[in-house]
Amino acid sequence: MTETTLTEQHRELLDQVLDKWSLQILEALCGSPLRFNELRRAIPLVTQKSLTAALRRLERNGMVERVVTGTRPVAVEYRITPLGDSLQDLIDALLHWTTETLPAVERARASFDDA
Amino acid sequence: MTETTLTEQHRELLDQVLDKWSLQILEALCGSPLRFNELRRAIPLVTQKSLTAALRRLERNGMVERVVTGTRPVAVEYRITPLGDSLQDLIDALLHWTTETLPAVERARASFDDA
Repeated sequence: MTETTLTEQHRELLDQVLDKWSLQILEALCGSPLRFNELRRAIPLVTQKSLTAALRRLERNGMVERVVTGTRPVAVEYRITPLGDSLQDLIDALLHWTTETLPAVERARASFDDA
Repeated sequence: MTETTLTEQHRELLDQVLDKWSLQILEALCGSPLRFNELRRAIPLVTQKSLTAALRRLERNGMVERVVTGTRPVAVEYRITPLGDSLQDLIDALLHWTTETLPAVERARASFDDA
């Protein structure tokens, strides 16, 4: 086990980047930059309000950046930053761990509930 | 980016094992099995009720097991299971990522707040 212990700062940052919508936004953006409505289509269950708040949090934490495109009319795109990208591998590892572990977890739950 | 996408099942399991107390319990148990009160001393801010609920969740998910010791008087110890151990590397990686990233996140927050 590493010497790193879970400080309040760790906790706060993890809560802000591992929350439900942030994970899905980072996942959607890792393919390519997207506009707000493209993100809404990529994450059907998210409300406009939740998406706005999560994007703002990710932007404030330096994981995502807002870029005004040079198109006519002007538009705003959201892009994942190198900082956001550095989280990507962890998110992949978490999702992979969850996929691998779910069958064993479900067996554990079944025997716990039957006990 | 892996083909694994974030299903509701993924989400539920991640929420249950990455929550505040579960992370700290798994961290405390990775050194050695502990009794309830030893866990409470290892995690000063947790209440009895929160610790009981988190242990129950971890046990139900197969991450921790309750073992009745052969001592006189009998006592109960909590041990991390191989399933719980498999999460340990990810928790280490998350904590390491957070430690490495916090300075850049704080710079991003400062410039976002000043903008």
